[in-house]
Amino acid sequence: MSVTPINASIITIGDELLIGQTIDTNSAFIAQELNKIGVWVRRRVAVGDVYEDIWKALDEEGAVSEIVLITGGLGPTADDITKPLLCAYFNGTLVVNEEVKAHVKNLFENVYRRPGALLERNLKQAEVPDVCTVLHNARGTAPGMWFSKQQEKHKTFYISLPGVPHEMKGLITNQVIPRLKDEFSMPAIIHKTAFTAGQGESMLAEMLVDFEASLPESVKLAYLPNYGMVKLRLTGRGNTKEEVDAVITPVFDRLLKEVKDFLVTDTDEGLEIVIGKLLKEKGLTLGTAESCTGGYIAQLITSVPGSSAYYKGSVVSYANEVKTGVLGVLPETLQADGAVSEETVTQMVQGAIRTLGVDYAIATSGIMGPDGGSPEKPVGTVWIAVGNNKETRSIKLNLRFDRQRNISLAAVNALNFLRKFILTNS
Amino acid sequence: MSVTPINASIITIGDELLIGQTIDTNSAFIAQELNKIGVWVRRRVAVGDVYEDIWKALDEEGAVSEIVLITGGLGPTADDITKPLLCAYFNGTLVVNEEVKAHVKNLFENVYRRPGALLERNLKQAEVPDVCTVLHNARGTAPGMWFSKQQEKHKTFYISLPGVPHEMKGLITNQVIPRLKDEFSMPAIIHKTAFTAGQGESMLAEMLVDFEASLPESVKLAYLPNYGMVKLRLTGRGNTKEEVDAVITPVFDRLLKEVKDFLVTDTDEGLEIVIGKLLKEKGLTLGTAESCTGGYIAQLITSVPGSSAYYKGSVVSYANEVKTGVLGVLPETLQADGAVSEETVTQMVQGAIRTLGVDYAIATSGIMGPDGGSPEKPVGTVWIAVGNNKETRSIKLNLRFDRQRNISLAAVNALNFLRKFILTNS
Repeated sequence: MSVTPINASIITIGDELLIGQTIDTNSAFIAQELNKIGVWVRRRVAVGDVYEDIWKALDEEGAVSEIVLITGGLGPTADDITKPLLCAYFNGTLVVNEEVKAHVKNLFENVYRRPGALLERNLKQAEVPDVCTVLHNARGTAPGMWFSKQQEKHKTFYISLPGVPHEMKGLITNQVIPRLKDEFSMPAIIHKTAFTAGQGESMLAEMLVDFEASLPESVKLAYLPNYGMVKLRLTGRGNTKEEVDAVITPVFDRLLKEVKDFLVTDTDEGLEIVIGKLLKEKGLTLGTAESCTGGYIAQLITSVPGSSAYYKGSVVSYANEVKTGVLGVLPETLQADGAVSEETVTQMVQGAIRTLGVDYAIATSGIMGPDGGSPEKPVGTVWIAVGNNKETRSIKLNLRFDRQRNISLAAVNALNFLRKFILTNS
Repeated sequence: MSVTPINASIITIGDELLIGQTIDTNSAFIAQELNKIGVWVRRRVAVGDVYEDIWKALDEEGAVSEIVLITGGLGPTADDITKPLLCAYFNGTLVVNEEVKAHVKNLFENVYRRPGALLERNLKQAEVPDVCTVLHNARGTAPGMWFSKQQEKHKTFYISLPGVPHEMKGLITNQVIPRLKDEFSMPAIIHKTAFTAGQGESMLAEMLVDFEASLPESVKLAYLPNYGMVKLRLTGRGNTKEEVDAVITPVFDRLLKEVKDFLVTDTDEGLEIVIGKLLKEKGLTLGTAESCTGGYIAQLITSVPGSSAYYKGSVVSYANEVKTGVLGVLPETLQADGAVSEETVTQMVQGAIRTLGVDYAIATSGIMGPDGGSPEKPVGTVWIAVGNNKETRSIKLNLRFDRQRNISLAAVNALNFLRKFILTNS
């Protein structure tokens, strides 16, 4: 059952990562894609635009990994030192690659339609070390580069990619993954994730003590808390997909039973996707009336391709005039109970159903901070209502985080509240 | 002028980072805060929940850095091995810390108000190595831990923090930064950032060839492309803030002049903040009418504290009935020109100004993909309009990315289009 995993390291290059000006989303994508084909990402390292630091990282990661993915440091501007360094590291010489040159010209002339913007420094991107295999970057000017080096005990492939996310993604999918599959015979890894809400990490762990103790050696359980929810992730490893599947499937079924009271979904997908599927299945529509979440729920729902099939829109009623004028909330209610009240969100739900012409609606109103709180309604007070044309239900949250986290938590809670409502009302 | 920087490494622990299930936002925050006090983050490393890998990372990072920040791996569940490992690494013994114990009990009884949920495994968080200084975590149960170790050539402080972002942030701000200031005499680092739009990285670099060549040795320029914009960041280093300021300020002024035609703002802040300041200054209000951006613009604007002073709301008109019913777009227009057209977004702007009672409005309508395109209107076609009660202007974008990036790019372009409109119309 035991399998020697193929190890990978990801090196990201760039001062912007080290001063915190950019959040590294590339590594997560690369890790996911490598994982799918059975490669284990053992380490991720970020270094600045410093020659000796990059060199050292290449040495260190090559010593522990068969695959070293490098992103960043390939742009056309002067702060990039990576390409000459790679050339020296692998004892190569920079030569002009005619195909890359033709590709860069073509991009400027026919795709960007700005031939006048083509500069010498763009053409320099066609210079590549003569010791690498060039990986075609259909989405941009900087090509990927594939090197290999014999280490003490193993051979390492070093793959250098541009840091622009959509260029990197194209190269990973179309060039890197297929080539890695050719080079290695991969072990199989399967993840199965259950998404729970309404119970903390510790309580779940307590519930799952016996379950965890009984796990087969090739399966691991991880707890991933995330905005008031906990993802439970099982990871199985083995020689073939079939072998792993046979072990992990019954274990996962048992897990689902253990946590059934808190289960949101048995796939690793957000509530916005779960709700979209539910609505599509039932042929019903949704609208939102958002005050404190300010459009956050709407953008979550519409981030899902095809959401126009069930989502009609939102009235983001940040100002009270919009609550009364567009949603028909009674001025007396705002006067008597305030905008952050059960009565207001109830009227907002009914107003959204009417105004947007939908089957279900969600409404939110709250105080997200940092200012605007009072002793009766401190920062973090949020009223949420969901309903259809027969019934409206509401809950109150008392959040205690920063503004952005309060907004996300309110949105996730609202979506989960709606999910339960739909399940008991259709 | 030259200063020996104090180096830091950040180690993040957790399999979820290596399989790409979680994006590491903690490191960016820590890097920013360390940077502010003059500490240079030299490396960031992510390792999984593997004993030997964590141990090796402690060795390697301690060898190159005076400060090693460790996050993650301290939760109450069974997949965490970090605390026993740290205890062994620093030759300590786990002992119960009575203050932490009282704090955990108090949190469950008086803050969470769920005394029944307090479990043995929560109380275990009060066990800490006897060789560390305990850092009080006001926001959660897992305390921070502060260790030190003499290396070959320097002393290293190792600081272990929980991975939950808002707990980590509280500890960094209230405990770690003040202690580091006591331990080190810090060099000064100043960053100054100009935010540009409308010109690519290469063209800017070309414009700035002479400027770059003339930079003093202690100042560096970096290009940070980001969603159709480029941030230009100057970094100056020296012994004191005053000394660095005297060098970098005239250099930054020169940079602003060089790029004045493309300058959005001379501070490192998003367009949503720049626009908020503009509106506040002029005492004018804004509303949005979003189709393809689905509330993304609204949530960007309302992510800014105090935005209710100038932002009244949005009509997210995902469905055509909402465009006609709420915004008053003419059914004939939708019929003749389609929802993605100049005429439609123009009517949406006017409808938003009327319906929401605002001075300015933004409208968007487009095809974000992956489906829904046609030969005449391919995926990525977006119409944007901005206006007030006197004038409406529109532009068409042809985006060529994935759904989420198309949405963000449309939003940023819309905000910048509005910014220019406000500057020439008030």
